[in-house]
Amino acid sequence: MTDFRSDNTHGASPEILEVLTRIAAGTITSYGNDEITARVRERCRELFETDLEILPLATGTGANALSIAAMTPPWGGIFCHDDAHIHRDEMGAPEFFTQGAKLFPIPGPHGKLEAATLAGVIDDIACEGRTAKPSCVSLTQATEAGTVYTPDEVRALCEVAHARGCRAHMDGARFANAVVSSGASLADLTWRAGVDVLVFGATKNGALAAELIVMFDKSLAEELRTRWHRGGHRYSKMRFLSGQFEAYLADDLWLRNARHANAMAARLAAAMPELLMPVEANVVFARLDPATIAKVREQGFLFYDWPLFGEGAVRLVCGFSTVVEEVDALVAALNGAR
Amino acid sequence: MTDFRSDNTHGASPEILEVLTRIAAGTITSYGNDEITARVRERCRELFETDLEILPLATGTGANALSIAAMTPPWGGIFCHDDAHIHRDEMGAPEFFTQGAKLFPIPGPHGKLEAATLAGVIDDIACEGRTAKPSCVSLTQATEAGTVYTPDEVRALCEVAHARGCRAHMDGARFANAVVSSGASLADLTWRAGVDVLVFGATKNGALAAELIVMFDKSLAEELRTRWHRGGHRYSKMRFLSGQFEAYLADDLWLRNARHANAMAARLAAAMPELLMPVEANVVFARLDPATIAKVREQGFLFYDWPLFGEGAVRLVCGFSTVVEEVDALVAALNGAR
Amino acid sequence: MTDFRSDNTHGASPEILEVLTRIAAGTITSYGNDEITARVRERCRELFETDLEILPLATGTGANALSIAAMTPPWGGIFCHDDAHIHRDEMGAPEFFTQGAKLFPIPGPHGKLEAATLAGVIDDIACEGRTAKPSCVSLTQATEAGTVYTPDEVRALCEVAHARGCRAHMDGARFANAVVSSGASLADLTWRAGVDVLVFGATKNGALAAELIVMFDKSLAEELRTRWHRGGHRYSKMRFLSGQFEAYLADDLWLRNARHANAMAARLAAAMPELLMPVEANVVFARLDPATIAKVREQGFLFYDWPLFGEGAVRLVCGFSTVVEEVDALVAALNGAR
Amino acid sequence: MTDFRSDNTHGASPEILEVLTRIAAGTITSYGNDEITARVRERCRELFETDLEILPLATGTGANALSIAAMTPPWGGIFCHDDAHIHRDEMGAPEFFTQGAKLFPIPGPHGKLEAATLAGVIDDIACEGRTAKPSCVSLTQATEAGTVYTPDEVRALCEVAHARGCRAHMDGARFANAVVSSGASLADLTWRAGVDVLVFGATKNGALAAELIVMFDKSLAEELRTRWHRGGHRYSKMRFLSGQFEAYLADDLWLRNARHANAMAARLAAAMPELLMPVEANVVFARLDPATIAKVREQGFLFYDWPLFGEGAVRLVCGFSTVVEEVDALVAALNGAR
Repeated sequence: MTDFRSDNTHGASPEILEVLTRIAAGTITSYGNDEITARVRERCRELFETDLEILPLATGTGANALSIAAMTPPWGGIFCHDDAHIHRDEMGAPEFFTQGAKLFPIPGPHGKLEAATLAGVIDDIACEGRTAKPSCVSLTQATEAGTVYTPDEVRALCEVAHARGCRAHMDGARFANAVVSSGASLADLTWRAGVDVLVFGATKNGALAAELIVMFDKSLAEELRTRWHRGGHRYSKMRFLSGQFEAYLADDLWLRNARHANAMAARLAAAMPELLMPVEANVVFARLDPATIAKVREQGFLFYDWPLFGEGAVRLVCGFSTVVEEVDALVAALNGAR
Repeated sequence: MTDFRSDNTHGASPEILEVLTRIAAGTITSYGNDEITARVRERCRELFETDLEILPLATGTGANALSIAAMTPPWGGIFCHDDAHIHRDEMGAPEFFTQGAKLFPIPGPHGKLEAATLAGVIDDIACEGRTAKPSCVSLTQATEAGTVYTPDEVRALCEVAHARGCRAHMDGARFANAVVSSGASLADLTWRAGVDVLVFGATKNGALAAELIVMFDKSLAEELRTRWHRGGHRYSKMRFLSGQFEAYLADDLWLRNARHANAMAARLAAAMPELLMPVEANVVFARLDPATIAKVREQGFLFYDWPLFGEGAVRLVCGFSTVVEEVDALVAALNGAR
Repeated sequence: MTDFRSDNTHGASPEILEVLTRIAAGTITSYGNDEITARVRERCRELFETDLEILPLATGTGANALSIAAMTPPWGGIFCHDDAHIHRDEMGAPEFFTQGAKLFPIPGPHGKLEAATLAGVIDDIACEGRTAKPSCVSLTQATEAGTVYTPDEVRALCEVAHARGCRAHMDGARFANAVVSSGASLADLTWRAGVDVLVFGATKNGALAAELIVMFDKSLAEELRTRWHRGGHRYSKMRFLSGQFEAYLADDLWLRNARHANAMAARLAAAMPELLMPVEANVVFARLDPATIAKVREQGFLFYDWPLFGEGAVRLVCGFSTVVEEVDALVAALNGAR
Repeated sequence: MTDFRSDNTHGASPEILEVLTRIAAGTITSYGNDEITARVRERCRELFETDLEILPLATGTGANALSIAAMTPPWGGIFCHDDAHIHRDEMGAPEFFTQGAKLFPIPGPHGKLEAATLAGVIDDIACEGRTAKPSCVSLTQATEAGTVYTPDEVRALCEVAHARGCRAHMDGARFANAVVSSGASLADLTWRAGVDVLVFGATKNGALAAELIVMFDKSLAEELRTRWHRGGHRYSKMRFLSGQFEAYLADDLWLRNARHANAMAARLAAAMPELLMPVEANVVFARLDPATIAKVREQGFLFYDWPLFGEGAVRLVCGFSTVVEEVDALVAALNGAR
């Protein structure tokens, strides 16, 4: 079977397992007060060129929901794209961690929020005054549609948010893919554009299970630490989370993995008859006819239908461990099936 | 420094890291529908000699709170020992996951609940009818005091619970230490004695971060799966959780690790002037005079004061990677300091 | 000033205050175990021609949120019209009482849900399986747009709900107005059409503050009683809630009040140049030009702009104590202003 | 039957019903922006000799839980007497409204918290740092044991609270009874002694259902208004809540009612063989032998056993409408039964 289902069907980079194995012996202070975690914090400060605080944890759902909850009261409103993972795929995790906030899913082309539409929706809610208190705008970078916001687009959305009393959250489950696609600096893609909290994902890009809540607004840190502990998201043996990040951020592993996955997606996209979204990261959305889909699947290629994007839509995801032969085999199968 | 602070300052067993490294390549179905997880489920059914369901996750706090929440409505009452981790150390995790239940901490000698006291407290609450609905009794095995319930003691407590409409939860953060200490079968220590859900911890005993919610009452499984996902506790790359358990439960690694830690604690206990609790697992509570404590710490021995157990009380924890030389060095230092 | 702002700017019917005054002396069992409450329950069983349970409370927001919460888990989905009070005007009360459920607001003409649209939305959510568990459909009768569902329309929607594992909730803040408008029996408008719980409002129609949760599905009663108490919505001196209902349901006071308010609205509607919604209850939505609006307001007429229904939209509400001279004065002012 | 069960089996003062009847006609701005509510706010400022904000609602459970929630995060600790209504009788309302805070019930003689004990409990919790964040101390005035805190006692407790980062809440369900018993000024009993929020109850002392959240710390007002609305505790026809307070606070009705109830309790207490608590308000706790209890009940006297205060304990409550003949009849019955 050749697997284009998701980046989370892939395993983990050998470099990361080597680090975990190396640091497994001996005793270390638990719960995050260790040197490895401190080094990861410093490394992030270098990479993002600013002061910041971090909290490591194992899942993106936990990281998103916790960080949104630190910015949103139970009566708050959260504004996100209609496709957002936090709205569609987390079984109400933001509602649970905020303890009752309301999501406002907003349509927008290519999986992106647009500043004017966002402003209109927030203003309507704020004007009623009896629906929810506008509190948080959540962007996904790269988006669920496989596209990437430019720093200017991020800045425009963050300005809309801040002008209306909202903070800005970035779901970076595929942040590495966005970074290599964009070419912009990490700072320009995040805090310089107004992002208050980034969920810096590593899981989809070669870690075992590792996400980092990166707080550019350090005033959130104390409350978020409490929520992290209370939510059961604080590892006791923190070295095994921080160690993943140490390996991930060393020697540009994270950028190499993402660059490879993006290149594989671009190679696949080039052979597609009908793309449904611009391919700017590691995910390809295409339309195929049912007969082609069936034939290709018979040959052992795994991928998901994506009815959200219309009839015949499929999603093809390349991961850090996708090899060029797999892509070429799929292209050949598609060509043969038509 | 020689470290007797906690079993979670220890690292991970090489056998576990070898398995993780071996399974890291290739793609596998994500979110728990993989073969490794299926094998762990089967292995648990063998070990516990019964049908059951499992959910793997990374933290004991998450595992305890989720499983208690599946048995306790928001207006429920949870009955536990006054020392219980769920009451003292999880910053309200059970309250968060149950969305507002009330804990009733109950004193009892040697860190253990006693059946008659438990029955009295539940009956008082039930009779008022306006305080909380008795819903869950939580036992810790081994206890926070380093003692171990016998199967008969567990059965007596579970009978009190069930007769009053409560389900029984076992916090098994140190379950392996209790098993090797008790000599009883896993079945006798759990479901045959009436336990409905066990949190089967591996983290403190050689895993990186791995806990298993073991449901003997399978009717809880569907709701618990939803809570697990919504709580952000479901790994996407589940192989890296299940893989830890596969290694842990193979070749009796879990029993060997626990047996070693218990033996180290027994060796240490034998040299102690005043034990505060029977030493039945891997934790030693002793009283030392302040001058001794200070001198021993100066020589690089790390351990915690334990004021909960009185003035001069200290806690000394042995882990799977504690070596006999460390224990003997501490004994020598203590003898020298007096 | 002549007030067409809302039915809740009106006071209370003299008949109701007379009853309250009459029952104010002497002691009576508190918290709802009194004879007045028992008589109201019996009266409801007669009126609705079926067995049922009731819980009286003071606010519609409380009544809606509590009853929805009894049908919806924290990870549940609630389906309602885009204009629904529970979505727009209660600052997240359903999210609070359900402890995190998700509302899916659905557009539909004339303030009404349509069965096919509703079915499509629920099916989409159910098919994803990772967004929310479809749990509750909420109808408003009379709607926020001042229209009234027929028994057939209610039945079609309840069938869609039940076929998809949802229960049906009816927000009857203006139920009396719907009843007199529809001419159908109470049974046909509610349980015979599939409604599981009705919030039977009296506040907007002449009570001081009195709503009744009417459970046709009595299996909800025990949990709902607990939620009612815990939510602070259980009066200790219940006689003063039940007494309002006793007066309200005696001698058809509730029908007389609603019939009058509806008639006043019809009289007003007849003089309107452009109605935005069919006028089937006591609320009139009309479009007026800005100059007219300004002139009429200058003469002391109070009413709200209603931007939700477009530019120039206004809402004019008649209550049980609106007098015909007030309506005619407004009509005259409007005619004079154009 | 002669009823000494509770002050909430009593009805309502005629003066209050007269005011409600008088203000029932005509339209008034709803939801609290009316002149009656404004006048009640002014009256409170006079009575308490300070600036303050108010929120009227119908139940003490709602008022307590909402005001505590405005001072306590979901991971907060609430410290109260072991007998407190918020702990024993509200089915977890504070846990619900705070969304998961933890109550620490503390014993103390005569139903009163003692400063030194309180300080010890808070310090223990704060020192652990993993149990809860100390946030709120809740006093009951008059206490559940029918005793009354002096201004000095209140001040000592509030100082303990404030020095530890907690705010002070006063449950004043029987505040009027405490005021007339104490003789101190309202200011001395509340904000001058450090109380941040008072729940000023009227229901038990002659209102239909009316409680006032009185915020001496006005910074809580905005959030509390949102919680009040979202909790379904905001009357639309607010005149009927505020009107009760206008009557209650006019012509010293509230003081007259409380003075009468207290006098009746004192008269009853004087004839009791064994008092279990000092009788300082309108509640008498006494020990009676079972034969006496049975005989007196046979003669139609209603009152509750109070096992919390030991075997043979009974509670006898006098209300604003208890008449001297009822007290004397009970005394005679008791004397006859012995």
